[in-house]
Amino acid sequence: MSAKMLNERDLSFMLYELFDVEKLITRERFKDHDKESFNAAVDTAKVIAEKYFLPIRKKIDQCEPTFDGSKVTMIPEIKPAIDSVIQAGLAAPASDYDAGGMQLPEIVANTVNAYLIAAASTTLGYVALTNANCNLIEAHGSEKQIKTWVKPMREGRFMGTMAMTEPEAGSGLADLTTTAIKQDDDYYLISGNKIFISGGDHELSDNIVHLVLGRVKGAPKGIKGITLFIVPKYLVNDDTSLGQRNDVNLTGLFHKMGGRGQTSTALNFGEKGGAIGYLVGEENMGLTYMFHMMNEARIMVGSSAAITAMTGYQYSLDYAKERRQGRLLSCKDPKSTPVNIIQHPDVRRMLLTQKAYAEGAWSLCLFGSLLSDNIKTAENKEERQQAQFLLDFLTPMIKSWPSEWGPKANSLAIQVLGGHGYINEHPVEMFYRDNRLNPIHEGSTGIQSLDLMTRKISTKNSAGYIALLQLMQNTIEKATGIKQLASCANELNNAIAILELTTKKVLDASSVECADLVFSNSVTYLDMFGHIVISWLWLKQGMSAIIGLAKTPHQEDKEFYLGKLQAMKFFYRIELPKTYLWASIVENIDDTHFAMQEAWF
Amino acid sequence: MSAKMLNERDLSFMLYELFDVEKLITRERFKDHDKESFNAAVDTAKVIAEKYFLPIRKKIDQCEPTFDGSKVTMIPEIKPAIDSVIQAGLAAPASDYDAGGMQLPEIVANTVNAYLIAAASTTLGYVALTNANCNLIEAHGSEKQIKTWVKPMREGRFMGTMAMTEPEAGSGLADLTTTAIKQDDDYYLISGNKIFISGGDHELSDNIVHLVLGRVKGAPKGIKGITLFIVPKYLVNDDTSLGQRNDVNLTGLFHKMGGRGQTSTALNFGEKGGAIGYLVGEENMGLTYMFHMMNEARIMVGSSAAITAMTGYQYSLDYAKERRQGRLLSCKDPKSTPVNIIQHPDVRRMLLTQKAYAEGAWSLCLFGSLLSDNIKTAENKEERQQAQFLLDFLTPMIKSWPSEWGPKANSLAIQVLGGHGYINEHPVEMFYRDNRLNPIHEGSTGIQSLDLMTRKISTKNSAGYIALLQLMQNTIEKATGIKQLASCANELNNAIAILELTTKKVLDASSVECADLVFSNSVTYLDMFGHIVISWLWLKQGMSAIIGLAKTPHQEDKEFYLGKLQAMKFFYRIELPKTYLWASIVENIDDTHFAMQEAWF
Repeated sequence: MSAKMLNERDLSFMLYELFDVEKLITRERFKDHDKESFNAAVDTAKVIAEKYFLPIRKKIDQCEPTFDGSKVTMIPEIKPAIDSVIQAGLAAPASDYDAGGMQLPEIVANTVNAYLIAAASTTLGYVALTNANCNLIEAHGSEKQIKTWVKPMREGRFMGTMAMTEPEAGSGLADLTTTAIKQDDDYYLISGNKIFISGGDHELSDNIVHLVLGRVKGAPKGIKGITLFIVPKYLVNDDTSLGQRNDVNLTGLFHKMGGRGQTSTALNFGEKGGAIGYLVGEENMGLTYMFHMMNEARIMVGSSAAITAMTGYQYSLDYAKERRQGRLLSCKDPKSTPVNIIQHPDVRRMLLTQKAYAEGAWSLCLFGSLLSDNIKTAENKEERQQAQFLLDFLTPMIKSWPSEWGPKANSLAIQVLGGHGYINEHPVEMFYRDNRLNPIHEGSTGIQSLDLMTRKISTKNSAGYIALLQLMQNTIEKATGIKQLASCANELNNAIAILELTTKKVLDASSVECADLVFSNSVTYLDMFGHIVISWLWLKQGMSAIIGLAKTPHQEDKEFYLGKLQAMKFFYRIELPKTYLWASIVENIDDTHFAMQEAWF
Repeated sequence: MSAKMLNERDLSFMLYELFDVEKLITRERFKDHDKESFNAAVDTAKVIAEKYFLPIRKKIDQCEPTFDGSKVTMIPEIKPAIDSVIQAGLAAPASDYDAGGMQLPEIVANTVNAYLIAAASTTLGYVALTNANCNLIEAHGSEKQIKTWVKPMREGRFMGTMAMTEPEAGSGLADLTTTAIKQDDDYYLISGNKIFISGGDHELSDNIVHLVLGRVKGAPKGIKGITLFIVPKYLVNDDTSLGQRNDVNLTGLFHKMGGRGQTSTALNFGEKGGAIGYLVGEENMGLTYMFHMMNEARIMVGSSAAITAMTGYQYSLDYAKERRQGRLLSCKDPKSTPVNIIQHPDVRRMLLTQKAYAEGAWSLCLFGSLLSDNIKTAENKEERQQAQFLLDFLTPMIKSWPSEWGPKANSLAIQVLGGHGYINEHPVEMFYRDNRLNPIHEGSTGIQSLDLMTRKISTKNSAGYIALLQLMQNTIEKATGIKQLASCANELNNAIAILELTTKKVLDASSVECADLVFSNSVTYLDMFGHIVISWLWLKQGMSAIIGLAKTPHQEDKEFYLGKLQAMKFFYRIELPKTYLWASIVENIDDTHFAMQEAWF
């Protein structure tokens, strides 16, 4: 098998043709960069992925970390692999030069990560969470905290986590009970149990910096009484050398179906009287700060889901081109040679579906990254503001659409390989297991759908929603003038009209009817909206393909563009019509499952 | 957790209310039986399931069988568990008294199996395949073969397999290359490699009886040159005591994502000159005979898929009733107690969807079993013939619909549990892995769809198709007169009209256009047809519920029936409309994926 991890041609298409990333280099922050430096960073990631991670990917999956009661042990190949990422400056390639980063645009950094995620699965989570942890402290911590915690994390000496979930508070964070008692101006004593903490303990770094949500004694109930603390595994001296062990203890590892590259831990804070924790920002503002990290993590989750789908697609594509089996229906000669299975129409269906889901999902994640770049670097304030509105609005979809549809692609990858897809000789069964986590963590699909429908739609006078509709209309206008795209543009326009109607009906109803019923079809609404956004992005991909087709003299390029147009066609023909079914459910405030009583199950 | 494996009330509803199994006891074959004896058999299975299998279910999954180069080792608890099934007479409860069975109707036997499958996952496969192997030899083998091989298998001393797949011949069995050279009237020498042979080696029985497809030297190419042989692990003496070791060798075990209760093996026949094999029936008729076993195995696969979905549903339902988390949108008081998650509308959606898929799938499997009973025991020849037409026609759907939609239910079971569903403390992640095999083995979904569309629809002047349409129309007529069901009956009628139109268009087109294109949407056609059949069965369930509601004075019963009606409503409201999208693709002979060229991917 010579399967690519990812299709380089497609990564390049997305960056330079679909999102025209080269235009970013005119901005001050990226002035040292050009296409060459972007590609060099991506290439470096690919080299590291192939050298350090790909050879151990299967072993990582088969040898999950163990805990003997005092220490976590994982296969020894992981540390040098992660160190190689840090040494190459790829742990946080978008961060400031000052912080050890490359000041790459987020959209390029996400592409850099793509190779590392494809080859290392969740192992990269240690690095990615550390990066997000740093970003939060940089945004909301004190100067001293940045010096003490961020610097060693940026250098790779420390790693970071986010510690939110408790045994009785997962989706319902409002009920978390971890307590904090103020000792003096300098610190609090933290006590409580946290579960499902990714990277919560390991021996990969000298220290682990937990960002812990807790409740200061006497704080209000609910989310308004949540405070954020830095709680390290080891206290540190002024020079950031390690001090005494803090009262944070690993009580066990969870055994996950997939995603075995990263430990998932149960941590006990304060079993010996209280873990020392340092307040971030102000008391009772913890959840607001944590959203800085959560929103970043949500985009990371969506990206991982998209990449896992893309990798599975590439693998099954390669298999389908090589594996011979059966004959076409039109061939009646049993003496003829069996065909490569890519010749079978149903295998082509499964491959094209994967392509449409995976590349659609990836384009959405990259668009999210581009919005992050625009928030930081767009030329004027209005554009930066618009980008912020759009990213806030799209985050539930960036998190959920790849997480829901990526695993469906991975299931098709298994099906293409048949029995061979179900055994561990091939990685597609691992992708299927790995990707199943993504609709769950960092806010389940249900949570995301409520975020979209009850908050994001209406917040700030619907600024994000309106901005997105406008963007989609701009594309429709352009595409309507292009012969090969006009019918898709028209279909998108129709679907958006239904979306607007549906949204209006729901919001109108919410002012007179019970919210529990009105928003009870929130996941269906998210499905519908997500499919429309992906349809829009496929139309944009189609536009770039038309432009590319007109320019290129190369046969291979032409074929690539024709494939893009066919995947677009697929999405409009097979997927977009689903939105009408979904709209009818949401719009009519269908109560079928709402009316189902507990005693009837 | 007090989760039921299966909902007893529902099993009983299906047997006695939906399919009126008691009427079978008037038939000669079942004259010793009554409702009590049926229930006693089911209860025995439940007791064995709870005593022997449930306690080791997790261990079976975690400790897959190993092979040290000479012997297969599995956890020691498996053999006594399987022996307990055999000793209780539950290995083949539908088979003749003479053969050690109970002469239970197949539909009751399938319900007996349900508990064993729910608790033992694929471990029961050893027994079930042995049973199907016996049934094949009884139907097509000689008296001597029945005495030599079936008798010890029925007694549990020997076990059986079906050995079809080869490294280069899986879906494309026509290309299998295992060769057989006739030695004298008594036996052939068999040489070849077989893979993915379930139960192909183990130490659970004294001997293993492989039913092997091969090709006699000089036989025609393709499926017309395939012959069936009995190839035992050990030759036997006239008294069925073990003779010398046959030339059949295990070369390795496959490591499967799930279904770890049963070994999946690579076998080498004839590496020392040839394995002794005994001809079943006539040369070149092997595939026809094997279909006897394959059709049985296909119904077994569908049933396993349905049961795995039902078990996951019960587990997640129980969790949702106990787990407290969050509050309803309408509750603004953070001091209030969190609700049980079954109160959240989206959790109810996920539970109701599981119920609709799992119980719909199970009703289809039981209907298939009832048809098997009617084939053997219906009062007149015409009814027996009709049942045969119907079962032949429905087999691709009985195999595929539960296999495709069951795993979707299992995914929702994980989602209901959230992070807890992704770790091995709960069995739902195992169900998800186990069930993913079912769309692959015993003929993939793609293979089933071509069987339906290119053969089953038109064979014998469409007798099966016509018989099914007639059955559905009968139900529609009855349901139209019942107020609570009239609108569903009407919707089913509309959907069937579209189905007929679509079928006709495709068949008409097949006489003028290329078969590869015309049948290229076969899986979509199977989806559509399957959903219509399940809608029909839900309407029948609705009818039984209405009857039950009118009769029962018990509150708990009333609630059960209301749940059935709500699940029916769900299927008609949320699922049946999908058939219109699918019909539009099939009917228009949509070429979107057919037109996708290999070079464009």
